Formats: sequence, structure tokens, C-alpha cells
Amino acid sequence: MFPAFLQMRGVERMFATDGFMDDFQNRLLASADRISGALDALLAQQPREGEISRPERLMAAMRHGALNGGKRLRPFLVLESAALFGVEEADAMAAALALECVHCYSLIHDDLPAMDDDDLRRGQPTVHKAFDEATAILAGDGLLTLAFELLGSAACHRDAGVRSELVVELAKAAGLGGMVGGQMLDLQAAEDAPDEAAIRMLQAMKTGALLRFACEAGAILGSASPSDRATLRAFGEKIGQAFQLADDVLDVVSSDEAMGKRVGKDEAMGKGTLVAILGLEQARQRADALVEEAEALLSGFGDRADVLKSCARYIVSRQQ
Amino acid sequence: MFPAFLQMRGVERMFATDGFMDDFQNRLLASADRISGALDALLAQQPREGEISRPERLMAAMRHGALNGGKRLRPFLVLESAALFGVEEADAMAAALALECVHCYSLIHDDLPAMDDDDLRRGQPTVHKAFDEATAILAGDGLLTLAFELLGSAACHRDAGVRSELVVELAKAAGLGGMVGGQMLDLQAAEDAPDEAAIRMLQAMKTGALLRFACEAGAILGSASPSDRATLRAFGEKIGQAFQLADDVLDVVSSDEAMGKRVGKDEAMGKGTLVAILGLEQARQRADALVEEAEALLSGFGDRADVLKSCARYIVSRQQ
Repeated sequence: MFPAFLQMRGVERMFATDGFMDDFQNRLLASADRISGALDALLAQQPREGEISRPERLMAAMRHGALNGGKRLRPFLVLESAALFGVEEADAMAAALALECVHCYSLIHDDLPAMDDDDLRRGQPTVHKAFDEATAILAGDGLLTLAFELLGSAACHRDAGVRSELVVELAKAAGLGGMVGGQMLDLQAAEDAPDEAAIRMLQAMKTGALLRFACEAGAILGSASPSDRATLRAFGEKIGQAFQLADDVLDVVSSDEAMGKRVGKDEAMGKGTLVAILGLEQARQRADALVEEAEALLSGFGDRADVLKSCARYIVSRQQ
Repeated sequence: MFPAFLQMRGVERMFATDGFMDDFQNRLLASADRISGALDALLAQQPREGEISRPERLMAAMRHGALNGGKRLRPFLVLESAALFGVEEADAMAAALALECVHCYSLIHDDLPAMDDDDLRRGQPTVHKAFDEATAILAGDGLLTLAFELLGSAACHRDAGVRSELVVELAKAAGLGGMVGGQMLDLQAAEDAPDEAAIRMLQAMKTGALLRFACEAGAILGSASPSDRATLRAFGEKIGQAFQLADDVLDVVSSDEAMGKRVGKDEAMGKGTLVAILGLEQARQRADALVEEAEALLSGFGDRADVLKSCARYIVSRQQ
């Protein structure tokens, strides 16, 4: 079964001939299970060595925000980009979990009444609905902080230089010049009516930076050459842009039910999107072109990069 | 001029004979100026290398929360404990700034309507009053993230092992088992009516952990022996407890005007404090005893530790 969007765009044939999509989706699902299991252990109620206490309500809220059936796309990209440089999954898992903690924190804070004011996330009540606003703010703060503890810990990588580099790169991607800054611009977008260039910058910060980090992190973990690292970084940028275009398309064509959250919101709030500027058809074409560019970037890795290439395609074909 | 509290407790004589207090306060003020200057530069509007953009409103809110005339006690402790191990101020400044960023973020989030709902901080409107709630949440998130960027960066320390260790220790102190967890327990305190042991744990997490980190960070930066590091950690724990007792005393005896924020709030909210349990006089005695224990811990360092000892005394004598 191929999603209607792919049938329309004639991508079905490509998948039909190589079977990539089924294999890929199974791989992504299996990886999500392992990542969720590791997050589950990480967020156990029992205090770890050196911790005074883990407040029950805080842990419950962090678990609610982090263990809700996400696709685990970002940590998957960390694991797969690390595998490209010969890094075993166990040796990339801490960095993958750190990134997922940052992603989950950002969703919890973005959903708050003062921000996007969303009641549902993946079909479940958002953290501030299931608990309360104060607990949701703290759960987000706790996940963000935990991410850096994971990256700094010896279990992340034997080389402290690699750990420090991951800390700096994740902080840059997630911080004032990245995701947090992008969310600020997004909140102002309803008033500012950004043009295409401004929307691209906002998206590069808000969602692009973490996806770029996901791919670059694998290269950092694998002590890749500067050239390979730049390639993975560029790949992450391309798929970040494609991801956002696909998201904007889904926000227009999908239903609340299929997405497990409220859709059509950008338009309702008067925020400009690239779909509003380019139109649906051109937005889809551009997303496809970005995926092709992303795949081309990895050509030097041969079939070792097949999973990452499939992931790029998946990103524009997903239905939620 | 000695504060009434010290006159009552006969501490005046001690200071009158050695002149510590005047010297110390001048040193703290001068240090606060340098730290504020460095924060000012850190939070400049101009993007730094590798940053796409620094959204104006976000930077203004972060500056409002971080550049508001704080005493800079925590970064001062980092600098002075590092100096004990021969580390120049310039070489400890990044870690000091990182800790202050975490402190400022915690104040911004704690002041939010969903949390402690405070309108004033150091006599100025809190960030969500001067801006709005969403911007205040993001400003806090941005400062927390920036702290880890600072610690991971080469400018923090030439040895990446030291940088990673600082990252892990700050994350533990600030995270779910430290400050964030403590704030969760504090929010629940009005309902839970914690006993003395529970209040001590709450305080050790909410305020103690960062003060302990401040002192231990100096030892980490200075590659101190495990024994010296444990000593500085214990010193930080003692002054953390003394700080909190002094804070609880001030919350009862001080005025809103002198503190630049609302006082008497813990009692009004029905949260148990150690002062409510022990009484004012015993709380003061215990704070003094903790300061003496803290000073005794540093006896092996001779007069090189005079500034840190003065700081311990200052912590229980301060009027705000």
C-alpha cells in the first residue's frame, strides 16, 4: 500500500522495483522500539547514582512527553549516519537519546498555552493538559538538561573531545540561533508576515537545525573526515528543508485525525507558509527535488547509504 | 555599617577586627561588574560565527533576565574556587558565565504565572511582565542551552575531559535530580506539607545543587586532587544550606522593598520552611554553625581561602 501522495507523484514505481519503502519502514519501526525502550529506562522512577531524588510527578510528566509513540526520526538519523562511519548502534545511542530528549522538550514547551496552545499531540493530551502548565515547563526543562548530561557522559563516546563537540553542536542547533530562536520567529510570524526568505530562515532554525545536527552527529561520533562531515551536514540541511515542506503540505491536506494533532493551524493563524507562497504542487515538486539533491550528496558512499537515502524519501512521503 | 542581623549576632566584632567584610564586598562588586560585562557581550544582538540569526525580541528578553544587577554570587564562587587552584579568572570565566546563565534561566521560569507568579525581580518587572509568557519561556530555554554551549566550547578549558565533566556536573545539578526536581517539589510543598527532612532535600536540590556546583567547578577547572575536589564540594553544600536558611530568614524579616521582590510568600502559600519549623533564632544559629563548618573545611588552604571564607560569612549576613 502506497500513500495517495506518492501514487500521485509517481514515486510508487520506484519503491515497487526496489522494495525500499517496506524495508525502510520496518527498519524505522524496529529502531523506534529500541529507542523508546532506552528512553523508558533513562526516565525510570528509580534515582540513578549521585541523584538525591527523582520527583514522581516530574518523572511522570517527562515520561508522558517522551514516551508517546513518536517516530523517533531524529535519533534514527543519528544512529544511521553513525553506522555509515562504522559506529555500532550501542555507541551512538546516548547521542541519539540526547537529541530525542531535546526534540521532546521542544514539543512540550511549544504546546503550552502561552505558545501554540495545543491540547493534543500524537492523539494524546499534551503534557500541560495531562498534568499542568508548571509541570510541563519543568518537564521540558528537565529533558533539555538531561540531553546534555547524556552527551557529556563517558557512555556517549570514549573521546571527551567528541563529547564536547556534540555538546556544542547540539546547543547551537537547539539554542537562540537555532530551534529556540526559530520558535521565537514563528510566534512573531502571524504579525510579521515573513516573506519567502524569512520563512526559510525561520524553518532552518526551528526544525532544520535539529535534523542537520542529527546527521552531522553521526559523522562526529564516527570521527569522519571534514569533507564527509560537511556532506552529512549538507544532507541534514536538505532533508530538513524537505521535511518542513512536507509538513506544510500535510498541514493543508491532512486531517486532524490522521495527524493526531490540530492541522490547518498555520493558515488559520495568518502565518505565512511556503505552501501558501508556492502553492501545493510547487511545494511538492521542491520537496522531491530536495530529496534528490540529498540522495546525490551521498552517492560517494554507495549502497552503504541506502538507508539514509530511503529516509530522505520517507520524509516527504510520510502521512503524519 | 553592619547590618542589624550581624550586630544582633555579634558578628560585627569579627569583621571589625579583620576588615574582611568591606574588602569582600568590594571584591564581590568588582567581580559582578566584570561578570555582567562578559554576559553583556555574550548576549549581544550581533550573531556570532555559525549562527543564522539572533531574533531581536528573544535577545532583549534574555538580556532583561540576565542583565538586571544580580549579585553574581554563583559565578563569583566559580572564579574564586578556581583561583584556589591557580586558575586565572579569564580561564574560569566561561564556566562562571554558564552557571549564571542557568541561574538566570531558573529565575525567569520560576517567576512565570504557572509557577511562582512573580511580577517583580530585583525591583524590575519579571521577564514575562516586561515581554510575555511565551517569550519568557523561550528566553529561559535559550539561556539554559547557551550554558552548555559555553561549557563545551574550547574557550572554557583546553582539556576536553574537563569540559565534559563540567557539562555532566552542571546538568546533574540543574536537572531532574537537582534544581528542576527541587522546583517541582517546591511547587508541591503547599499541598504536601513536607517535614524537616523533606524540606532539606527540596532545598538541597532547588538551591543547594547549583551552589555546590559553583564550588566544585573551580576544583574541576583547576584539576584538583579528588580530596580537594571533595572538600570544595562539601564546602559548597554547607554554604548552600546556609544560603537557604538565610533566605528563609530574610523571607520572614525583610520587606518587599529591601528585597526587590515579594517576601513572606512561603508562609502565605502554606509552604513549610525551616524557619517555621525551627523558629527564627535557631535558624540563624544553624546558619552560623554551617558557616563555621564551611570555613573549617577550608583550613588546609590557609589564607589563600580567605575570600571563600568571607563569602560564606557574607551569605548569611546579606540583606537581600
